[in-house]
Amino acid sequence: MDTIYLDHNATTPVDPKVVEKMIPYFTGEFGNPSSAHKKGYEASKAIEIARAEFAKLIGADPSEIIFTSGGTEADNIAIRGVYFKLAPEKNHIITTKIEHPAVLQTVQYLEKHHGAEVTYLDVDTGGRINLDDLISSITEKTALVTIMTANNEVGTIQPIEEIGKICAEKGVLFHTDAVQAAGKMPFDVNKLGISLAAFSAHKFYGPKGVGALYIKKGVRLDPQTTGGGQEKKFRPGTLNTPGIVGMGEAARLARENLDSHTEHVKGLRDYFVSRLKEEIPHLVFHGDPKHQLPQVASVGFSFVEGESTLMFLDMDGNIQASSGSACSAGDLHASHVLLAMGVSHASANGTIRFSFGKDNTKEQVDKVMEVLPPIITRLRKMSPLAPKEE
Amino acid sequence: MDTIYLDHNATTPVDPKVVEKMIPYFTGEFGNPSSAHKKGYEASKAIEIARAEFAKLIGADPSEIIFTSGGTEADNIAIRGVYFKLAPEKNHIITTKIEHPAVLQTVQYLEKHHGAEVTYLDVDTGGRINLDDLISSITEKTALVTIMTANNEVGTIQPIEEIGKICAEKGVLFHTDAVQAAGKMPFDVNKLGISLAAFSAHKFYGPKGVGALYIKKGVRLDPQTTGGGQEKKFRPGTLNTPGIVGMGEAARLARENLDSHTEHVKGLRDYFVSRLKEEIPHLVFHGDPKHQLPQVASVGFSFVEGESTLMFLDMDGNIQASSGSACSAGDLHASHVLLAMGVSHASANGTIRFSFGKDNTKEQVDKVMEVLPPIITRLRKMSPLAPKEE
Repeated sequence: MDTIYLDHNATTPVDPKVVEKMIPYFTGEFGNPSSAHKKGYEASKAIEIARAEFAKLIGADPSEIIFTSGGTEADNIAIRGVYFKLAPEKNHIITTKIEHPAVLQTVQYLEKHHGAEVTYLDVDTGGRINLDDLISSITEKTALVTIMTANNEVGTIQPIEEIGKICAEKGVLFHTDAVQAAGKMPFDVNKLGISLAAFSAHKFYGPKGVGALYIKKGVRLDPQTTGGGQEKKFRPGTLNTPGIVGMGEAARLARENLDSHTEHVKGLRDYFVSRLKEEIPHLVFHGDPKHQLPQVASVGFSFVEGESTLMFLDMDGNIQASSGSACSAGDLHASHVLLAMGVSHASANGTIRFSFGKDNTKEQVDKVMEVLPPIITRLRKMSPLAPKEE
Repeated sequence: MDTIYLDHNATTPVDPKVVEKMIPYFTGEFGNPSSAHKKGYEASKAIEIARAEFAKLIGADPSEIIFTSGGTEADNIAIRGVYFKLAPEKNHIITTKIEHPAVLQTVQYLEKHHGAEVTYLDVDTGGRINLDDLISSITEKTALVTIMTANNEVGTIQPIEEIGKICAEKGVLFHTDAVQAAGKMPFDVNKLGISLAAFSAHKFYGPKGVGALYIKKGVRLDPQTTGGGQEKKFRPGTLNTPGIVGMGEAARLARENLDSHTEHVKGLRDYFVSRLKEEIPHLVFHGDPKHQLPQVASVGFSFVEGESTLMFLDMDGNIQASSGSACSAGDLHASHVLLAMGVSHASANGTIRFSFGKDNTKEQVDKVMEVLPPIITRLRKMSPLAPKEE
C-alpha cells in the first residue's frame, strides 16, 4: 500500500534534483570552505552560489544571508542576538501567542532568566493579530517584534507588510519566523519591511540540518556561539557545503515553481475540503480562509480524539498527517495555537492538520476520502459525547 | 593532474559507503523523526541506530549522546552549559593555550562578559601540558577543565587519562574537544574519565553539518538554545536524519578500521618525514613524536613563508595542505599553537601541516617529494634570511 504523505508542514522529501546537486560535495568537492587551496575555493564558491540563490528567493542581498543548521538556530540567533545587544535599555519583546516553540520558548527563556518584558499578542478566531494591539504595545523599551509569517499548525498568514510598516515607523526591529512561508507564498524582505527572518531548507524540498537567517544590512546582533569566524561570526563552525548547496538549489526550484506549486497544492486542499464538507458532518475548519497557506487544511473532527484518528489513518490507509496537539515529554496537551484562537480543549484535541505537497495527487485525496470517513464514524460510535443519531 | 589531498585534519571526503547509507533518508525515508506516524518512526529508528553506533565508537551509552550540528556547537553547549549551570559559585575554568577556537573563543567570551576566571595552561615544546600545573590550578571555584584530546595543528595528544583521573579526584568536570581524536586513536570516555566530549563527523569520513556531544550520565548543563524538545532539550530543532545516519555509519567504519587506518596513515606520514629529512635541509618538526596523531606532520620550513609554499604546492602539484598560521579577517598572524610551544614567529609562519587520509598512497608522497623540494629551494633563493650556500 503506497504511502500518502500529507504532513508537508512537518517536513518535505528532498527533491531528487536537489540531492543530485548535493552529491558531488560529499565525495569529490568535499573541501573545507575555509581552506586556502583549490579544494577549499571550490567549496566556498559553491556556497556563495547557494547564498545568492537563496537570497533571490526572499529578495535579499546575498551579504544579508547567513547559513545556520536550521530554523530553530536561526530564530535563536536573531531573538537572543537582538535582545542581548539592546537589553537592559530596551528589554521589551512583542510576540504572539501562536508562535513556533523556537520563538515562544526563546522569549519565555529571556523573560524568565534575563529580565525581558514580553507582550504576547492575542489572535482572532482565524489566528491573526490585531494591528491596533501591536501599535499600542510598542513602547520606548521595545527591542523587538517577533511575529511568524505563517503558522505551522493552521496555516494562517499574518499581515506582515502592515506589521513591517508599523515597526519601521516606530523604529523597532522586526523579526519573523518565515520557516513555513518560504517557497509557499510570495515573500520579499524589502517589500515586507523585515529586519530579520528565519528559514529552514527541509520545509521546501531541501535537506534537513540547514537553514538561514536574513539579517538586514545595518541590523546589529550579539553572536550566540563562539569559535571560528564563519558566517560573520554569527554561526561559527565548518560550513555544511552539501546541505547549503542543497538549500540553494531548493530555493531556486521553489522560486521557479512557486505559482505552479501553489496552484497544485491549493487545488488538492480545496478539493479535499469540499469533499470533507459533503461527506463528514460536525467538522470545524481552523485558520483564516482569506489568509492561509495554500497547502494546509486544519480540520476539527468533533467528538473524536485526534491521536486515534491519526493512528488509524496511518495503520489503515498508510496516510500520514499530524495532530493539532503536540506530544511533549509524554504529556498530551491541546495545541497552544488552537487554544489562542478560542477553540475548546475538546475540539482542539480532535483536530488534524493535513498539509499537501508537490507529489500528492487527486487520486490520493480520493483514497483518503475512502479511508477517513469510516474511521471517523467508528471513533464517534465509541464516543459518549457524539450525537446518537449518527 | 590528480589532486593530492593532504589536509585531512581540515576535513575528509565522505566515505562512499556513508553516502550510500544517507541517500535513502533524503528522498524515501524523509520523515520528521518527531512525527507520530510511520514516516516519523522510521526516521527516529534510524537515528537511534546511529546513536548506538556512535556511542560504541567512544565507549559511551547511547543515552549519553546528543547529536549537534558539529564540533563547534558541541563545544559551546558543553562549556557554556556547565558554566551557566555552576557560575557564579564556581566561575573558574582551566584550559590550555593551544585549544581550537571553538573552545578558546568560548572561554574568552565567558571571561570577558560573564565573570569567568580562566587559567590558560602552558604547554611544553612538544605541545603537552604539565600535570602538576593542572593540579595546582584547580581550586574550589573550578567549574570545568577543558583540554583538547589531540591538537588539530600539530597532532599532539594530551595525557587525557591522567587529566581525567586528576579531575575525578578533585571532583571537577572534565570536557575535551575530541574532534581530531575520534576515529584516529583509541578513545574510551570511561577509561579516560571524561565528563563531556565534542565530536564532528566530517573529520572521520562522515558528512559536514553534524557532530555530537557526549554528556556523562549525571552531568548537568544549562541548555543554550530553546525550541522543541529534541535531544533532551540541549539541541532543539528537527533532527538531521541523513547527516546523523551518516555519522553513525562513519563511526562504525572508523571503529572497524581503526587499526588499519592508523597503520596506513602512520606509514605514509613516517615515510614522508624520513624523505623530508633526507632531502630538504633546515626543517623543524613540530609536535611530540611520542604522543602524536598518526596522520599528522607539522613541518617548519625555515626561511620561507608558509602561505607561499602552500600556494605553489596547490598550483604546481595540485597538492593541498594547510599552513600553521590561521588567516583571520584578512590578517595573517602566526599560529597561537606554535607560539605557545615556543616556536618563533618567523618559524611558525614557515610551517605547513600535512595530514594524511585513507585514500592517500605512497605514490602520492613520491609525487609530493618531486614537487616540494624545488619549491622550497626557489622560495629560499628569494629569501634574504636564507643561508647563501644553498
